[in-house]
Amino acid sequence: MITYPQGFRASGVTAGLKASGKPDMALVVNDGPDHVAAGVFTTNRVVAWPVTWSRQAVADGRLAAVVLNSGNANVATPGGMAITEATARAVAAALSCEPRDVGVCSTGVIGTMLTADPLVAGVEMAVPLLSSEGSSAAAEAIMTTDTRKKEATFEAGFRIGGMAKGAGMIAPGMATMLCVITTDAVIDADEANEALAAATSHTFNRIDVDGCMSTNDTVLLLASGASGIAPDPAVFREGLTAVCADLARQMIADAEGASHDILITVTNSATEAGALAVARAVAQSNLFKCAVFGNDPNWGRIISAAGTVPEAVAPFDPADLAVIINGVAVAEHGVDTGRRDEVDMAANREVTVEIQLGSGNESAHIWTNDLTYDYVTENSAYTT
Amino acid sequence: MITYPQGFRASGVTAGLKASGKPDMALVVNDGPDHVAAGVFTTNRVVAWPVTWSRQAVADGRLAAVVLNSGNANVATPGGMAITEATARAVAAALSCEPRDVGVCSTGVIGTMLTADPLVAGVEMAVPLLSSEGSSAAAEAIMTTDTRKKEATFEAGFRIGGMAKGAGMIAPGMATMLCVITTDAVIDADEANEALAAATSHTFNRIDVDGCMSTNDTVLLLASGASGIAPDPAVFREGLTAVCADLARQMIADAEGASHDILITVTNSATEAGALAVARAVAQSNLFKCAVFGNDPNWGRIISAAGTVPEAVAPFDPADLAVIINGVAVAEHGVDTGRRDEVDMAANREVTVEIQLGSGNESAHIWTNDLTYDYVTENSAYTT
Repeated sequence: MITYPQGFRASGVTAGLKASGKPDMALVVNDGPDHVAAGVFTTNRVVAWPVTWSRQAVADGRLAAVVLNSGNANVATPGGMAITEATARAVAAALSCEPRDVGVCSTGVIGTMLTADPLVAGVEMAVPLLSSEGSSAAAEAIMTTDTRKKEATFEAGFRIGGMAKGAGMIAPGMATMLCVITTDAVIDADEANEALAAATSHTFNRIDVDGCMSTNDTVLLLASGASGIAPDPAVFREGLTAVCADLARQMIADAEGASHDILITVTNSATEAGALAVARAVAQSNLFKCAVFGNDPNWGRIISAAGTVPEAVAPFDPADLAVIINGVAVAEHGVDTGRRDEVDMAANREVTVEIQLGSGNESAHIWTNDLTYDYVTENSAYTT
Repeated sequence: MITYPQGFRASGVTAGLKASGKPDMALVVNDGPDHVAAGVFTTNRVVAWPVTWSRQAVADGRLAAVVLNSGNANVATPGGMAITEATARAVAAALSCEPRDVGVCSTGVIGTMLTADPLVAGVEMAVPLLSSEGSSAAAEAIMTTDTRKKEATFEAGFRIGGMAKGAGMIAPGMATMLCVITTDAVIDADEANEALAAATSHTFNRIDVDGCMSTNDTVLLLASGASGIAPDPAVFREGLTAVCADLARQMIADAEGASHDILITVTNSATEAGALAVARAVAQSNLFKCAVFGNDPNWGRIISAAGTVPEAVAPFDPADLAVIINGVAVAEHGVDTGRRDEVDMAANREVTVEIQLGSGNESAHIWTNDLTYDYVTENSAYTT
């Protein structure tokens, strides 16, 4: 709901990048009065040209618009930077702003050829359709293997709205995701940056569908100041985090081929970082994820994944480990409790796993999904 | 072929640990005159009781026998250490040796209950069947999801023989594998240790089926000295490495549910460690592995996996990357060559991927497999 805050217009159109003929370009415009912006990007060293462009564009804390396309990720494409720049220039010309005030995001297949023509033509279609009712069309146009659009809102006098896409290649650093968040709060660029970094680290950075870090991940925050309200920074962060958490949870619920959403919580850890490392190790175990698909509370695969984390990262004694699946303690003091058969995993999509390390009071969680036939299907036939 | 060298007898029996009723216990005895031994074990912090036992047993460089069971991994089992010790004591009593000269290895399901009774009864069955023709029965008895037994030999005056099992949970440190290697060469314990460490680091540690490090991985080398030949250390290492490489390749060829064996070679790297890190990152990408299952030369997933390796580990410029799949250069200088359609992946089980980093002269390889429906099937229904 990126047009939920005051001062924003959006549209979504079909530029012809998707073979399916579905909408594939979204435009989001900040009509001000402020044009404050912040961004968070993939930590992958191989990045899409639009990531390189948008990092530079947002570096001065200012954006007037964001253009997003699905259907082609514009990674490793010959001439890809010129294509990105042409897209930004087309937006800038139509909106009478500077090209460097236009963020560009792309998602879709990596490494297939692309020209600027459909992107520029798409911009020309999208500009006249810009509207304060356009959030839904924009959210739809950025979908790839997503089966539904992902939107969220927050209100506390001022408003925050967000849209996101992401269903696969969702991993450690951040998801293969594009996300645009808008707000009509009055905030400065430093505050926007700090709030966005804090919010993403506890939301988008805590989901892991398949351990595969993307080349295109981008989260952009645009602030129009149109509400005239300068919120308490803590309230703003809380709202921003709630919107990001909502969108992240929607991504897990729509993850490629998944039949279960899995919340892995690691507790009684000496440090939060250690808890997070153990949670990530479990979330990235294909054997564990296959077991969940089979509704099998195979906790041996949980502790064997936990045991791959170096002691320096997460100090714990394997003899102290406890594992609780959907509320049933299947292992205590490092050994089997014989209660495996009490665990019912088939009843609900959501599965909870708690791992108690017995070495402190810190905790962390990761959301992930099971590994299914449908995941293999989607990812073995994606480009062919 | 663990009875290929002089001085060894072996047997395989059905102790009743496997629900299928198939053979599940192997015994290997070194009749000397030497009883030199060396071992390499999983680096997982959560380990099976037999790993704890065998680490201690082999610490003095001496073993007289190894007993191996499939059907239960003896991990996180209440009383598991006493069960392991009872098994070793049963072997020691029958062979008139010390319990601490008996190595114990277990493989199978993690975290299900176990008692000593079937293991002790199995030893009593296995001892009278010990024979210099027993290698095949032993190799069969250690299989779990393996579809065929894995044996290898080497000869250069002295002899080396080996058997291994392993088809899933095969990953970074070492495979979920048990391996016993025998030799009639005259070598001392230090030489045995050094040769085994060198051989495993370039063979078993270079295969990665599913990124999941086991709790039970064990490789034991037993030397009888029965040939009377004290080989040149370089020749011995070469032979040992050849046997390990042969067994490792057999494990990849029999990996759970796989339809392709994938050799990932990273070349033109500043360091071997950097090349290895990039090869491992690609080998652990589920998206890449699904693409190979779909016979799709989706090299974008290769470079995006390569890009997750920190620059400090593998210095390279993404703009220099080249990717060659089955001999076809699909990317050069970091961009698409447009030759994707020339790649034929359907014709052979073996697929080769070369990634040129353009930053030096070092290289490394990893063997892995594709991610298939059958992998998901085997691992979603394994304990139920």
